[in-house]
Amino acid sequence: MLQLSCTDQIIDGVDFMSSETPLSEAGYKSIAINVSDIAAMGGMPKAALVTLTLPRENSTKIAGEVYEGILEAAEKYNITIAGGDISTYDGPLAVNVCLLGEVAKEQLWRRSGAKEGDAIVLTGPVGGSLSGRHLRPQPRLDVVQILQDVVKVNAAIDISDGLSLDLDRLCASSGCGAELNIDSIPIHPDALHMAKESGRSPFQHAWSDGEDFELILTMSQHDADRLSQSHSDLGLTQIGNMVGRTGLWKKNDRKLERLPPQGYTHNSNTTDVVN
Amino acid sequence: MLQLSCTDQIIDGVDFMSSETPLSEAGYKSIAINVSDIAAMGGMPKAALVTLTLPRENSTKIAGEVYEGILEAAEKYNITIAGGDISTYDGPLAVNVCLLGEVAKEQLWRRSGAKEGDAIVLTGPVGGSLSGRHLRPQPRLDVVQILQDVVKVNAAIDISDGLSLDLDRLCASSGCGAELNIDSIPIHPDALHMAKESGRSPFQHAWSDGEDFELILTMSQHDADRLSQSHSDLGLTQIGNMVGRTGLWKKNDRKLERLPPQGYTHNSNTTDVVN
Repeated sequence: MLQLSCTDQIIDGVDFMSSETPLSEAGYKSIAINVSDIAAMGGMPKAALVTLTLPRENSTKIAGEVYEGILEAAEKYNITIAGGDISTYDGPLAVNVCLLGEVAKEQLWRRSGAKEGDAIVLTGPVGGSLSGRHLRPQPRLDVVQILQDVVKVNAAIDISDGLSLDLDRLCASSGCGAELNIDSIPIHPDALHMAKESGRSPFQHAWSDGEDFELILTMSQHDADRLSQSHSDLGLTQIGNMVGRTGLWKKNDRKLERLPPQGYTHNSNTTDVVN
Repeated sequence: MLQLSCTDQIIDGVDFMSSETPLSEAGYKSIAINVSDIAAMGGMPKAALVTLTLPRENSTKIAGEVYEGILEAAEKYNITIAGGDISTYDGPLAVNVCLLGEVAKEQLWRRSGAKEGDAIVLTGPVGGSLSGRHLRPQPRLDVVQILQDVVKVNAAIDISDGLSLDLDRLCASSGCGAELNIDSIPIHPDALHMAKESGRSPFQHAWSDGEDFELILTMSQHDADRLSQSHSDLGLTQIGNMVGRTGLWKKNDRKLERLPPQGYTHNSNTTDVVN
């Protein structure tokens, strides 16, 4: 077995607002976002080390509330809290989780393994997460074992910063590009809902919102076809194919149109291009 | 092999003062204190995950300075930086290290393995670390492999919070007590030096200062005797024996005197009893 490890922290005022978010939710999220990273490597989480950095005032109460969510997520994903560190200081609450996991050597998924011709498969609808569901990420650990049993995944990444940004990272790591059938991208109802107020299209939300914690997977077209037949109930969607030409491309009749990868948007009129 | 993991963070204003300490030293220390934890388990460090939480102002410069020390320590202890996380926020610099290591299953040292009659062995002189050497901890990884080859260590802990406090923790975990030959405790020259100004005795400094990062080890008296003959050059000192009676005890002719475990002292006249 290979040992896997990842780490991700969330900070009050940066990644969540304690004035709006119950601290138990922040605790839950701190574990769940790391579970998503382990899932993206094709592995199973085993043990977590939790570092709490607590404001001096009410530190015991805060630690208790955060741990409520940490323990709930740890139980859900069968994770042992193996250790940690606690400090108090003059600053906002920060929760750092280092998550350890494992995967059979031949089953490790990397960002860099995608091959030209691979089908690009998305595990679920994206966009609009920030309207609420980003507080309770549902990492797609549930499909990892099924996929390991049925197909050979060549590359994978989880969507934390946006479908297009994270797909672009996978492409860059693999030295390939992606040709996308834009109309096939499954858009989450939250994105439709947000689009009514944001002035942006549902597609723009799906393309760039982030915090979806769905997986982008690549596998041979043959495997993708088999999978869609044998496991149509999993809600997987093929959104395109890997190509030799680098970059993200939209298939438009016979024309190809380059698509810029986009991250978070800060107002309704501009989108920030990252990378 | 068993996988080992530990985590420890240091925060500006709590664990060091950026106004007095080069940030590269803070980075070095963040790795070294975790190496000490792995050494106390009898293992070797392998990989680290580093989380930097940076003030918004000058964040790139700060990250660079901290990493200078991190990389120096990583090279010294043969550690791969396997990942990490970086955030900026409205708060002081915090460096969290999660260190992964390994040890052969039968060679794992725990706090809880001490047996009645065991010799208590200290790897070096203690006290006065805060006068300067606490910034450049020298974790005793150098003696781990020698000890593994020569004796069977029953229990171990590293001294981060003070000889007496950490020995008390080892005793509590093992369900034993310790009978100490107080005069045999090796006192660091730094403790002698500090005692001239602090109004406390050199022994008090050695007993309670902390941040020594020496190891407290227990092993059979037979092993301790063999070790002192075959490896007198290692600078190890037997300071007492484990006993069935819980607590820390001073051997005084034929009388036993109970010794309170003590942590940091905050002024020259009072000592704070922790636990």
